[in-house]
Amino acid sequence: MKKLINSVDTIVTDTLHGVAAAHPSLRVDIENRVIYRRDAPRQGKVGLVSGGGAGHEPLHGGFVGYGMLDAACPGEVFTSPVPDQMIEASKGVDGGAGVLHIVKNYTGDVLNFEMAAELCADEGIEVASVLVNDDVAVQDSLYTAGRRGTGATLFVEKIAGALAETGAPLAEVARLAQEVNERSRSFGVALSAGTVPAAGKPTFDLSDTEIELGIGIHGEPGRTRSTHREAREIARLAMDAINDDVPLSGDTLVLLNGMGGTPLLELYIVYAEVAAYLEEKGATAVRRLVGNYVTSLDMQGFSVSVCRLTDELTRLWDAPVETPGLRWGR
Amino acid sequence: MKKLINSVDTIVTDTLHGVAAAHPSLRVDIENRVIYRRDAPRQGKVGLVSGGGAGHEPLHGGFVGYGMLDAACPGEVFTSPVPDQMIEASKGVDGGAGVLHIVKNYTGDVLNFEMAAELCADEGIEVASVLVNDDVAVQDSLYTAGRRGTGATLFVEKIAGALAETGAPLAEVARLAQEVNERSRSFGVALSAGTVPAAGKPTFDLSDTEIELGIGIHGEPGRTRSTHREAREIARLAMDAINDDVPLSGDTLVLLNGMGGTPLLELYIVYAEVAAYLEEKGATAVRRLVGNYVTSLDMQGFSVSVCRLTDELTRLWDAPVETPGLRWGR
Repeated sequence: MKKLINSVDTIVTDTLHGVAAAHPSLRVDIENRVIYRRDAPRQGKVGLVSGGGAGHEPLHGGFVGYGMLDAACPGEVFTSPVPDQMIEASKGVDGGAGVLHIVKNYTGDVLNFEMAAELCADEGIEVASVLVNDDVAVQDSLYTAGRRGTGATLFVEKIAGALAETGAPLAEVARLAQEVNERSRSFGVALSAGTVPAAGKPTFDLSDTEIELGIGIHGEPGRTRSTHREAREIARLAMDAINDDVPLSGDTLVLLNGMGGTPLLELYIVYAEVAAYLEEKGATAVRRLVGNYVTSLDMQGFSVSVCRLTDELTRLWDAPVETPGLRWGR
Repeated sequence: MKKLINSVDTIVTDTLHGVAAAHPSLRVDIENRVIYRRDAPRQGKVGLVSGGGAGHEPLHGGFVGYGMLDAACPGEVFTSPVPDQMIEASKGVDGGAGVLHIVKNYTGDVLNFEMAAELCADEGIEVASVLVNDDVAVQDSLYTAGRRGTGATLFVEKIAGALAETGAPLAEVARLAQEVNERSRSFGVALSAGTVPAAGKPTFDLSDTEIELGIGIHGEPGRTRSTHREAREIARLAMDAINDDVPLSGDTLVLLNGMGGTPLLELYIVYAEVAAYLEEKGATAVRRLVGNYVTSLDMQGFSVSVCRLTDELTRLWDAPVETPGLRWGR
């Protein structure tokens, strides 16, 4: 294994030093492992907190800033952050209007965020939670009861973040976050596994002719192994899985997401097929992202996430955002 | 080899279809292989054209848009575009104020852009050219007489693009582009090679304990092979190479660039060391980018580029830009 690290034991701390040095718009509490937007807490604004294992960058720390998250807390690589981090983050962003926890559906994350929410309540901080579970690949999996949370997390963070910026109350922000999750579906495909530094070898093996359909963002097994084939066919298999779950129609927001090790060139080739597929179904990608947003270390492959938009969701998606990973309008 | 492609022969065309579908702010001429900003040509504005082999995305097509390039033309993977593409692009962006060609210093690119410039002149289009040659690793290399052009290309495109947006004349935009190149230096390191689809295997082999110092963006050999080591040491080797060439001081713009296959997590770890190195030397990174900007397919590794800023360059760097790969201020 060759990695650009100093030591397996200091990966998260070293990363946070880099994030702090690179982004003066953020305030990084390295000791407590929390990334805040510089001006947190904002009085009267609902605070948005997310977190999860490291290794999925720019998720979540790269989405902290105006119009999106107020704080994010990273765990060790592919490991949930601990409740103490979540409590610290919640306190740090609470401006009196309460805090929304955005939680990807993995058992460790769910348990820890639940515990944190209870302890926050004990300290007088009002917390609501939204569970993201957009991955249609499998019902249960290695680290999950129910569907996994993947690419739609970005949609939830952006759209709920835009609503929170308007001064909307906690219940409304939580309701909208839930709606975004419900309207979103994802499916991922791996060509090769990522390597967790502490393990020192790829999380699974695929031969030169195999792909994994329905892969999870920690390399959890998907639906099936299959034969490698043209991008066109692979894209269709992914879109079929989504369309079989909820038929696609109308205006959609599409994320064609790289898993970390796939060239952007290839992501565009897949995106062309996704756009063609949507058109066939009478749906339209009216907003789109193509790039590495919810990664799995250096895994090769992609995931596609689709959110069926409403006028309100489109307007909030278009609202200004200023984070390291997503920026427009300012 | 597993790639997300339909066929080795249709990679560039298929990519352009994806770019066209993903970015309505661009106009993609798929037949002639040119990516334009939607509103080109802009009357009275100098047009900026760049281009180069595919496989370095988001360079160059991802930097087409307001405040940066007016057009980009991609060649086949790691292969120069042909003069016809460059002429077509130049005609398409000429708003009467002339056209600047931004050329990375590789023999094929240089010859083809020279030929294109002559043919443009014959047709009455005024063309100036700037040669980017920021890579301090080697004096000559596989595809280059003189230093190679790498990460500073982004600096030149952004800063010259901002000046062009103000209505500055061609000679002034060309002079500034030249100044940005002269003030910039880069150095790259590979942990593993990328795979060119037509070749079907990695462009070179590195053992599990080796790295290549001074790697080029096409996998050209660098200065030396060395032993893999801590990110801290590798970052220092890269920064030493730059600092030995031109001592670092004052305000700098830093690009910590991923080669395409390296997790963002690792890039931040390297960036922390780069920032510390600059501070030691009494220099400051006042503007910074960390991410995949000038890639080499799925190569694992990074390059670091440093531009010694002036007040004018900082102001133009900060000016609004709206492209798929770089966006702020609008």
